[in-house]
Amino acid sequence: MLERTAMRFTSERLLDDDLVERRFELGDIPGILWTPVAASALPLVLMGHPGGLDGMYPRLLARARASADHGFASVTIELPGGGGRERMPQIDEARADLRRALAAGGAPTPDVIDRLVLPLVERAVPEWQATLDAVLALPEVDGPVGYSGGPIAVGIRLAAVEPRIAAAGLFAGSFVPASMFAEARAVTIPVHVLLQWDDEGNDRAMALDLFDALGSEEKTLQANMGGHRGVPAHAGEDASRFFGRHLTREA
Amino acid sequence: MLERTAMRFTSERLLDDDLVERRFELGDIPGILWTPVAASALPLVLMGHPGGLDGMYPRLLARARASADHGFASVTIELPGGGGRERMPQIDEARADLRRALAAGGAPTPDVIDRLVLPLVERAVPEWQATLDAVLALPEVDGPVGYSGGPIAVGIRLAAVEPRIAAAGLFAGSFVPASMFAEARAVTIPVHVLLQWDDEGNDRAMALDLFDALGSEEKTLQANMGGHRGVPAHAGEDASRFFGRHLTREA
Repeated sequence: MLERTAMRFTSERLLDDDLVERRFELGDIPGILWTPVAASALPLVLMGHPGGLDGMYPRLLARARASADHGFASVTIELPGGGGRERMPQIDEARADLRRALAAGGAPTPDVIDRLVLPLVERAVPEWQATLDAVLALPEVDGPVGYSGGPIAVGIRLAAVEPRIAAAGLFAGSFVPASMFAEARAVTIPVHVLLQWDDEGNDRAMALDLFDALGSEEKTLQANMGGHRGVPAHAGEDASRFFGRHLTREA
Repeated sequence: MLERTAMRFTSERLLDDDLVERRFELGDIPGILWTPVAASALPLVLMGHPGGLDGMYPRLLARARASADHGFASVTIELPGGGGRERMPQIDEARADLRRALAAGGAPTPDVIDRLVLPLVERAVPEWQATLDAVLALPEVDGPVGYSGGPIAVGIRLAAVEPRIAAAGLFAGSFVPASMFAEARAVTIPVHVLLQWDDEGNDRAMALDLFDALGSEEKTLQANMGGHRGVPAHAGEDASRFFGRHLTREA
């Protein structure tokens, strides 16, 4: 049972005198927790990413700092099959199929998207829930809790099934199985969606339909020019302000 | 020649000890100028609106205050045919046709949109240029200059033809003639577009196509839930920050 897996801290260091960075393992899942120094009852941001903690570290740290500026703790874990974790061969095969389809100038078939994304969502969501259990058990972290980043399918499933998630900042930077549109309709929390207008690994029309499908009364789409990695700094700041509005006790 | 029309101040008052509000007439066009107290070399925001200065005053003042917080002057003028200005019967007829089409649950024909919007753009753009001449001639205002608000067709024409406009914050809250998509492609300045997802006086697909057509390398679309008048406060703040980034001398 993932829910009962203990969190084991493996390192701790102080950054810039005001941010504590602790690496941990939750079972065999590596992760990083950032908490502002000497704070208590912290809101928490779960920081999603495309996998590969080491390569993502600089961007994750920048996002953790922005969260800490709002007085929030941030936590991230390695994605199933990502970084040094055991590969998931079926996902690797689907990813190769996706790349072939895109390289040929075509669109991936629904089957490829399902094989790429659904097994990831199935595994990642309970891992995030176990992480949430462990971090909320720490004396300095209290919530509310937000989910931030990609993969968007993981964020949508989490937002739909996990009542402790109060707000979601999603990155529409990857394909979403058609079956997940019904889950999007079940999402009712405030949502902020970032879209890169010319994202090479995404389908713009699908992303706009997905935004439309989200059941939330309060949702914002922010689209900016450029490809997958071209999110401008001001867009990150706007996403951070979204959590500033929704993860404070006063809100 | 509108360009040579003198600006005549008709009243002046100080708001909250830090913002000077001056009403003026430019020929027969009424307008309002707001300038932060004791400031010089001010950037300037041209504040567009749907017409009817008196009714729009509270919202325009709120926008002027947000601009002043960034150290910007703001100016607005009555729209051709709006408020107490001489009616433009052809526009009134087209507006009645538009309302009939929308009330019947249909979409307005291209002909109705052309008759509604093109005469307004033809008249409003030179009036904004004359306003710009007059305000930039004041010792305390220096630029850069932004255009903010609706009607979006006026903003697009201004951004396309007026080289003194450095950035445009547009409100996709009204129809745009098909002929203006070519003008949108000629726009190259940074653009921030606000869209209300369920705007009853707009066509969402057309608004997304128009955003796509804008020639600017730097453009942001921000869409929020709700109808024409439901723009959330945070969206206004984001638009204001857009000008903060683009209308400062350092930028």
